[in-house]
Amino acid sequence: MEPLAVDVATAAPYRVQIGPGVLSLAAAAAGDARALVLTDANVEPLHRERLSGLAEAPTVAVEPGETSKSLGAVEEVLEAMATAGLDRTSALVALGGGVVGDLGGLAASLYMRGIDVVQCPTTLLAQVDAAVGGKTAVNLAAGKNLAGTFHQPRAVFVDTAVLATLPEEELAAGFGETIKTALIGGEELLDKVEAAADRLLARDPDALAEVVAGCVRVKAAVVAGDERERGSRKVLNLGHTFAHAIEHAAGYGRIPHGVAVGTGLALALAASRRLGILEDGDLPARVRTLLERLGLCPTLGGLRSRYDVPLEPNSLVAGLRHDKKGRAGAPFLVVPRAVGAIELDVPADGEALQAIFGA
Amino acid sequence: MEPLAVDVATAAPYRVQIGPGVLSLAAAAAGDARALVLTDANVEPLHRERLSGLAEAPTVAVEPGETSKSLGAVEEVLEAMATAGLDRTSALVALGGGVVGDLGGLAASLYMRGIDVVQCPTTLLAQVDAAVGGKTAVNLAAGKNLAGTFHQPRAVFVDTAVLATLPEEELAAGFGETIKTALIGGEELLDKVEAAADRLLARDPDALAEVVAGCVRVKAAVVAGDERERGSRKVLNLGHTFAHAIEHAAGYGRIPHGVAVGTGLALALAASRRLGILEDGDLPARVRTLLERLGLCPTLGGLRSRYDVPLEPNSLVAGLRHDKKGRAGAPFLVVPRAVGAIELDVPADGEALQAIFGA
Repeated sequence: MEPLAVDVATAAPYRVQIGPGVLSLAAAAAGDARALVLTDANVEPLHRERLSGLAEAPTVAVEPGETSKSLGAVEEVLEAMATAGLDRTSALVALGGGVVGDLGGLAASLYMRGIDVVQCPTTLLAQVDAAVGGKTAVNLAAGKNLAGTFHQPRAVFVDTAVLATLPEEELAAGFGETIKTALIGGEELLDKVEAAADRLLARDPDALAEVVAGCVRVKAAVVAGDERERGSRKVLNLGHTFAHAIEHAAGYGRIPHGVAVGTGLALALAASRRLGILEDGDLPARVRTLLERLGLCPTLGGLRSRYDVPLEPNSLVAGLRHDKKGRAGAPFLVVPRAVGAIELDVPADGEALQAIFGA
Repeated sequence: MEPLAVDVATAAPYRVQIGPGVLSLAAAAAGDARALVLTDANVEPLHRERLSGLAEAPTVAVEPGETSKSLGAVEEVLEAMATAGLDRTSALVALGGGVVGDLGGLAASLYMRGIDVVQCPTTLLAQVDAAVGGKTAVNLAAGKNLAGTFHQPRAVFVDTAVLATLPEEELAAGFGETIKTALIGGEELLDKVEAAADRLLARDPDALAEVVAGCVRVKAAVVAGDERERGSRKVLNLGHTFAHAIEHAAGYGRIPHGVAVGTGLALALAASRRLGILEDGDLPARVRTLLERLGLCPTLGGLRSRYDVPLEPNSLVAGLRHDKKGRAGAPFLVVPRAVGAIELDVPADGEALQAIFGA
């Protein structure tokens, strides 16, 4: 198939190209200038050679995993950029999952006060979400994602052929963000995900490209309307407040983020019903069915047994208060009224939360 | 005297207040929100208490000097911000010279993807130059100022009373940037600096405030026209290409930056004459006189004997090529045609440079 294209209308606009094989186009976006490829030690042997045209570009492969989201790793990348002779016209090409994208975006935004980054996401989670929108971050000892920048990429290449090698659970995690985005986007996209579910599970790269492009269109519209997350972009946190509570209660790293988001969507719908906001009474069951089909857990009970974690209601409530988007004590939720109709800044008292988590 | 005010018309505009005692106003700019004061161990005992209204705010004092311009120091500051409970509405107040301003600006631009910084410069160099304009940076092993951001402050407080305790040589260094800015600004400001020279040397805080305000007005106009240094802002590099060559040849840290800039101005004027660009033939002698009155060195010979450094013409030419603003080999200079009329991107061949450095 021809690559699908989505344009992101940020202050400095850019194009996202989506489809099997698009990594071969990334060299053109990096331009004639010197480029450095950032990846990780898992992705490098699998996909580095797909960046044809960048065969000669120096490569830095960091340790796979969350430990590379550190200022120490940023410094390592920056020194490598200087050693490679990158100047203000150069580009950094980030080939990998969310960690590589976040790290590469941050390093590019800092090098000589900002050079271009070309995002080449290789996980479904990064393809439908993180690679578009310009948020970069690393972790501090004090908390996750506390240090970062907004730095929109020059271009994004979403190659759905690379998903053939993605571990099963990472694919499921990506479906968590996919369903979230479909709930925000509206009926047409949610229908498409439901209709394509079997082909998605079979990793059909064309079906994946159609659905990822739908998600990227939704994300692009939200990001263009609120580039620096001052208000409306909060809609993208649908399911995330609950997901962070789950990840916090389980201990970070025990449950993949996208899987927690999947369960978080079911909890957000339960909250919507309990708080009298839900208008589409059939939506919770519909989402539950889709979550299950795509390998996710619609209930806390399912998460508990799959990951062998207790997830006590009390520690979930505590985790919710810990979320950095919450303000002094009272957590604010993002919950659906219906498909494509999301309510922001919904206050929730402790009793309601206990009931939702106890359910 | 009443504080002087200069408004900087960047995308997010802000005000610079200048005059003896203005540090007492900084608390109001930090707002009701939580604030953290960043300073260094030299400045803290001298001036921390001038931030009345911020007496209760936690303080982080870094090691004085260039070693604190590192990503390690950024991480330390970020962790302290998290420990102090700063959120997206908080401010970091940077009280110190250029190192503290650069470090604090960078840490603030990264914390939760950007919180406010209030700049309170305590050296003349930082007051006339670095505290306004939003450039932040730290050094890498590979070179100076290679990692940073553009992050305009929320407000700037330039207290000229603090200059009473500034070491003699740092005062002279500040005069180097002052004269540079006056050459860019035009006849009125250069006249003012010449007329006030004795009062400036006596550290009269009102005279200093008048001159600093004049410099800040020039800088504000340049920055507002080119916030991210894409073109016209290069005018601020007047004298700096030569200064970097001098600092590089002497070994960084041997000659204070502002002192090197002073000599760099004399060299830029010599280059302007040699390259046939100079229109105001009296300007070199006029600047030489002013440099001398304010404790600076108009000649390389003067620098050599004051700092006991060889500064060979060959190593100066090599240092010039090393400057990061230069492009592949041929250095481009910023040189005055006359007061207030500065020529950018002037190519200079090796022979001309040898002659200028040999003079």
